[in-house]
Amino acid sequence: MPLRTLIIGGVAAGMSAASKLKRLRPNDDIVVLEKGCDVSYGACGMPYYLSGRIPDEHKLIARTKREFEDAGIEVRLQHEVIDIDTEAKRVVALTQGERVGLCYDRLVIATGASPIRLPVPGRELRGIHTLGSLEDARGLRRALQRSDVRHVAIVGGGYIGIEIAENVREMGKEVTIIEAEERVLSTFAPFVSKAVNDTLLAHGVRVYLQETVSAYKGVDHVKQVISKQRSLNVDLVIEAVGIRPNTGFLDDAFDTVENGAIIVNETMQTSVTDVYAAGDCVAYPHKLTGTPAFVPLGTHANKAGRVIAEHIAGLKSHFDGVIGATMLKAFNLEVARAGLNLDSANKANITVHETHINARDKSGYYPGAKPMDVAVYTDPKSGRLYGAEMVGEAGVALRINTIATAIIAGMNADAFARADLAYAPPFAPVYDPLQVACMQVTTHPNKGGNDR
Amino acid sequence: MPLRTLIIGGVAAGMSAASKLKRLRPNDDIVVLEKGCDVSYGACGMPYYLSGRIPDEHKLIARTKREFEDAGIEVRLQHEVIDIDTEAKRVVALTQGERVGLCYDRLVIATGASPIRLPVPGRELRGIHTLGSLEDARGLRRALQRSDVRHVAIVGGGYIGIEIAENVREMGKEVTIIEAEERVLSTFAPFVSKAVNDTLLAHGVRVYLQETVSAYKGVDHVKQVISKQRSLNVDLVIEAVGIRPNTGFLDDAFDTVENGAIIVNETMQTSVTDVYAAGDCVAYPHKLTGTPAFVPLGTHANKAGRVIAEHIAGLKSHFDGVIGATMLKAFNLEVARAGLNLDSANKANITVHETHINARDKSGYYPGAKPMDVAVYTDPKSGRLYGAEMVGEAGVALRINTIATAIIAGMNADAFARADLAYAPPFAPVYDPLQVACMQVTTHPNKGGNDR
Repeated sequence: MPLRTLIIGGVAAGMSAASKLKRLRPNDDIVVLEKGCDVSYGACGMPYYLSGRIPDEHKLIARTKREFEDAGIEVRLQHEVIDIDTEAKRVVALTQGERVGLCYDRLVIATGASPIRLPVPGRELRGIHTLGSLEDARGLRRALQRSDVRHVAIVGGGYIGIEIAENVREMGKEVTIIEAEERVLSTFAPFVSKAVNDTLLAHGVRVYLQETVSAYKGVDHVKQVISKQRSLNVDLVIEAVGIRPNTGFLDDAFDTVENGAIIVNETMQTSVTDVYAAGDCVAYPHKLTGTPAFVPLGTHANKAGRVIAEHIAGLKSHFDGVIGATMLKAFNLEVARAGLNLDSANKANITVHETHINARDKSGYYPGAKPMDVAVYTDPKSGRLYGAEMVGEAGVALRINTIATAIIAGMNADAFARADLAYAPPFAPVYDPLQVACMQVTTHPNKGGNDR
Repeated sequence: MPLRTLIIGGVAAGMSAASKLKRLRPNDDIVVLEKGCDVSYGACGMPYYLSGRIPDEHKLIARTKREFEDAGIEVRLQHEVIDIDTEAKRVVALTQGERVGLCYDRLVIATGASPIRLPVPGRELRGIHTLGSLEDARGLRRALQRSDVRHVAIVGGGYIGIEIAENVREMGKEVTIIEAEERVLSTFAPFVSKAVNDTLLAHGVRVYLQETVSAYKGVDHVKQVISKQRSLNVDLVIEAVGIRPNTGFLDDAFDTVENGAIIVNETMQTSVTDVYAAGDCVAYPHKLTGTPAFVPLGTHANKAGRVIAEHIAGLKSHFDGVIGATMLKAFNLEVARAGLNLDSANKANITVHETHINARDKSGYYPGAKPMDVAVYTDPKSGRLYGAEMVGEAGVALRINTIATAIIAGMNADAFARADLAYAPPFAPVYDPLQVACMQVTTHPNKGGNDR
């Protein structure tokens, strides 16, 4: 019997679920309700669209509304869901001021997250942007293209702030990053933050650390960013201080973590029967800590969306859990991590030992070999791999997935150091940097450590 | 009590063993007997030394004889071991025409391998080179630098032949590859051979396939390469038709495979008490097939040398086995593989299923995304990963180690496809090409397959 699946949100998670479900159950009724005007776009590419490195917004769109409709998926734009009646299995959406009711057999919440806005005086001024949606990206790109926009302040030195900084700098603007923490990329290990900070400065970005924006000033349009330390004259502000799950419309029946992200199990089911969730609005099962983790990344959204479709279709499927594998381009640097570091392990009450080495991305005798810093995080007793962090000019990003795989497989440092990895002078040294790090790991079988 | 360890061969395996053992047992007597005049050089870099891409031979030398001696390791050059008395624990070496006898407590055979010479008429002519040692590389580089050397024939289209072709072409020479098999890189999957063949042609290399050299002609110096199909006028010939272990001096007490490579166990012990072997003269335990495999690569030599030192020192250590992970630069292409493909699985009586996909190395919307071809080889029943092969212009070489790790960990395609791998548009698509391939793998739980 055909089912009706309603999907709230038409970007990565929602559209993955819709596409996969339509292939698995062609006769089902699948309706996507999207608050905005765009579906299925590559949000991770938006920073590169600002500078024109990705010249055309159509390149960011994986599939158009029309293509989904041709595949038999109903897509309703500008439909904002404001209420769910989980008893009656019915949602209420607002479109052009009108309320529309829709019933469902299965519901998928894929509403994503929205940029957090700083609650400071002057926040209503024009010229203060965020980068949460393709609509945001269009507006910001138009604004940045104005020749009278010369000084751009980026509030937040996390990975989105840094990607934006690279692209805005590429447009020839003056760029200042204002970061409240004592270092950029503050969830990474300090050696990574240091390297990225150095490259930001080397590329002419001003970086103000431990500085909190207290107000924006201007008449109509923002002209100054105010902190305790200074008044910064600016032509445009981009806030990149984090995102918050779009789950405000949900009632208490949904279990969430503190920031409102919906807790899901390994088949992406929420605490409410027949309601699934995926994407930036959920807290995923974490493979290493066992607790729900807010890791809003496009890969998870895509994978989790598929899992939902497979589960609705009655197939055996599961989401494997996140370990927090990330890669980032920061000007000339590649930054990457997987699993836990000292801070995140500590927060999860897991004891890890850090081993830090310097190496080169390829054979030292091959031209263009670049230095990289590698840290691995291991169980002090068993040497089991819990995490890795790396930074360098080349060969970093793709390497992280090698050790991510080892972490997921539960390997320990010794086994990984002995693994038959490929080598050739133009690409890697005879001992891969990851293996060099793992060779240096010392274990203390009788002391401390985790017996997980 | 100090031990005396004799090490026959002073390149990768021998010198790794020597260095590590000296660190573990500083009071031991460690003597290295090297037939040639060089120790501890990076043989894998030699093709790039020919063209001057690596300008100076000293860059290839990891540590000099003097540095080893300063560390307390005795290094005797131009000592060729011609006999081992395994009962008396004594070797006989030939140096400058004289016989020298040396006793040992532990013996390490690390004599490497030598290029196979074609047994054809004219093979004694000058101008026919191989690239087996640093001495060979010096002579070949000098010869290639002569402006009257314009046409170079490379006999053999394996990976060494292709690396040499790239470098000789870079020097502006005309290059012809003559390969006896029906395709270059004949141990790789056909799609890889095809891509590499295309790029050879695109870079102006002539490639003659299924063509066997029957003679060399010339007066004193080679002038023609003769096959059934043609007489090729040449100024210089480089034979790259494979290598053969340097084990001719060993008696029957040593178990070997067909080509003479010494069979070792997981602690690199030979069939003779207190005699170890490592490097290009051994057949390593293969992690997937369980049989001894001749995989003469620098990574194994280094790792196995360490294992020997650790075992002599009484530490718990083992060699994890080879899976045949390799990467190769072929002009603008990156080529890589790990584990088994259809042919090698078939030879090992393992049934595998091939899944082949096309993908891009990074997000399609990011500038410079390059196509790549990926094949994965899996157990038809369980989907267990047995191998992968890839070719493309970017992002291939480093990716192979991700799936190599999955193969080593015994993951199946489904688990790997669900793994949390990192993603960012400048480096990878949202579904990594390796995961796309693994998502396409179909399994048939009730049909065929291996119950290993």
